Amino acid sequence: MAQLRIPGPTPLPPEVLAIMGKQMINHRGAEFHGMLTAVTNNLKAIFQTKNDMLILTGSGTGGMEAATVNMLSPGDKVLSVSIGVFGDRFASILAAFGTNVVKLSFEMGKAADPEVVRKSLKDNPDIKAVVITQNETSTGVTNDVQALAKVIKEFDKLIIMDGISGLGSINCPVDEWGIDIAIGGSQKGWMAPPGMAFVSVSPKAWEYYAKAKMSRFYWDLGKAKQFLAKEENPWTPAVNIIYALTVSLDMLMKEGLQNVFDRHAKIGKLCRESAKAMGLKTVVTDDKYASNTVTSIYLPTGIDYKAMSKNMRDEFKITITGGQGALDGKIFRIGHLGYVSEQDIKECWQALGVILPKMGYKK
Amino acid sequence: MAQLRIPGPTPLPPEVLAIMGKQMINHRGAEFHGMLTAVTNNLKAIFQTKNDMLILTGSGTGGMEAATVNMLSPGDKVLSVSIGVFGDRFASILAAFGTNVVKLSFEMGKAADPEVVRKSLKDNPDIKAVVITQNETSTGVTNDVQALAKVIKEFDKLIIMDGISGLGSINCPVDEWGIDIAIGGSQKGWMAPPGMAFVSVSPKAWEYYAKAKMSRFYWDLGKAKQFLAKEENPWTPAVNIIYALTVSLDMLMKEGLQNVFDRHAKIGKLCRESAKAMGLKTVVTDDKYASNTVTSIYLPTGIDYKAMSKNMRDEFKITITGGQGALDGKIFRIGHLGYVSEQDIKECWQALGVILPKMGYKK
Repeated sequence: MAQLRIPGPTPLPPEVLAIMGKQMINHRGAEFHGMLTAVTNNLKAIFQTKNDMLILTGSGTGGMEAATVNMLSPGDKVLSVSIGVFGDRFASILAAFGTNVVKLSFEMGKAADPEVVRKSLKDNPDIKAVVITQNETSTGVTNDVQALAKVIKEFDKLIIMDGISGLGSINCPVDEWGIDIAIGGSQKGWMAPPGMAFVSVSPKAWEYYAKAKMSRFYWDLGKAKQFLAKEENPWTPAVNIIYALTVSLDMLMKEGLQNVFDRHAKIGKLCRESAKAMGLKTVVTDDKYASNTVTSIYLPTGIDYKAMSKNMRDEFKITITGGQGALDGKIFRIGHLGYVSEQDIKECWQALGVILPKMGYKK
Repeated sequence: MAQLRIPGPTPLPPEVLAIMGKQMINHRGAEFHGMLTAVTNNLKAIFQTKNDMLILTGSGTGGMEAATVNMLSPGDKVLSVSIGVFGDRFASILAAFGTNVVKLSFEMGKAADPEVVRKSLKDNPDIKAVVITQNETSTGVTNDVQALAKVIKEFDKLIIMDGISGLGSINCPVDEWGIDIAIGGSQKGWMAPPGMAFVSVSPKAWEYYAKAKMSRFYWDLGKAKQFLAKEENPWTPAVNIIYALTVSLDMLMKEGLQNVFDRHAKIGKLCRESAKAMGLKTVVTDDKYASNTVTSIYLPTGIDYKAMSKNMRDEFKITITGGQGALDGKIFRIGHLGYVSEQDIKECWQALGVILPKMGYKK
């Protein structure tokens, strides 16, 4: 069966595809009101938060920009902890909006070390906020968010977390761990199409909002909160993605949060073990930090990524993806989040087991 | 038949609904590449422009914000010509990002007077750009964009046009009239769901871009242009809306641009004449400027908007909408753009012909 094995957009379940074809409704009418509220409540349940949950029309990167322009002022010192391309992207956003970025980068394939973060916070007492990544999509590494958050909380700093490729698939109890701003994206584990970002906002974050001086309009979280009180969005939302979420989040809730996390854990492990069984090396260096939503694997010597991915598509209708940034041309990546089963990953590795040897790879 | 008669989101044709349920694809793969290029080319044809056409994931308001942050620097003097709520919104965006807004407001129901714009430009020689609205959705007024653009060009200023509720339905040849930035929104005459904005960018606008100092990241039009060169978007786009546009824009192209404009003109006239035939007064004061995509009509004395719209929904499954801003509670609005026929408008007025007298209205 054809498979989209990239870390987002992810395949959509048939039930979700079915509701995408529902006729348009008034985004300021009663039917939409009920849908937005149901989706918001389910998102809160899966984020494991009682904080405000705001749904913005835009890509995940828009959610990152929203966090930046609503929490900070130009010149604010921000610790930006990066373990890959998406951590780097957040640092670029912070810099684009004029914050004073203290960037802490960890080696590709490694998680952020809480002790190094602690030292950075000690060395820079004037830091206002810390930006972390839950799950780095470029390397397939999941940070120990609980440990990082604990350190950051010792210094009483605002925590902004890019949870785009992790939330909803990898356990991250936002309130218990004290994440002030957590950002999700509809096209990841949520089993919905791309085009909406989710941002949870803690009471402490609202205090930052009250003082933040960056220019903002479209991404204004205060305006989003005002409109949510009347079950609406400030601007015309992507109504069909809300349709999709009414179905997909119900599916996740019915499966049960722990079961969803367990399924991703099982599948992630299967993917990594399959790679190792074929003698391939993952980018993540310590399995303790291996991502359960995406696996990044070094290309064997002599195997060209473009040819390999083309063969996978042509022969098996399986779409994998390549490396980003410094890893471009050096790795391939398999996405396994959202609507995915063990069988899917088995088939993917069976296909790789045919393609790689054909291309000259010997274990 | 159930009808969504609001000025966006608009009803979707069955062909568009059908493709919304297509399974997800890789937004960086060949199939998507072809789709994005086809959609971009069709949009250019309907905008009647050879300028760059950039498709952003976001609401129309996001397109307005994109125009602002890509063209201007804080402190820039901008003439913001408003004929209603959406003109006011653009002025608010300009102010939020620190420009020096010279606001020129015209009376509700009237179009912008080119001579008054000329005087403003004479009085303020340091103005850098002029922001106009093609079609004001709150009042149902279409500006004489050609005349306005002619005056603005005399002073060699950048022209930014909110064409969200007009482009694709009301003739506006972007290149011939010299509109540097024209903004559209997917949920309007384009017969696609909400969630994407279209921005055309002239060579002169790129000169402004090169000098503009506002902070930007998500909405960066330069980045969008770079990625479009490889048939992609910088951030994960709303893939399903691109699906919809592949079908809906083909439908518009097959109908023929002039036929699409003529259909809207005919339907707009029918809507206004139906209102007058019932003794109702439109907000637009001069039919020369009446909008062919939305009609705003004063509520008869004693008729409550909420009760009336509820009756229309309950009895006829027709959704109309109310007034915004100063017109809230004073008017009702009928949208007639995109997927709409004369028959739809006839049915809508037949329904109003039942509901209004039942509520005590006498002509």
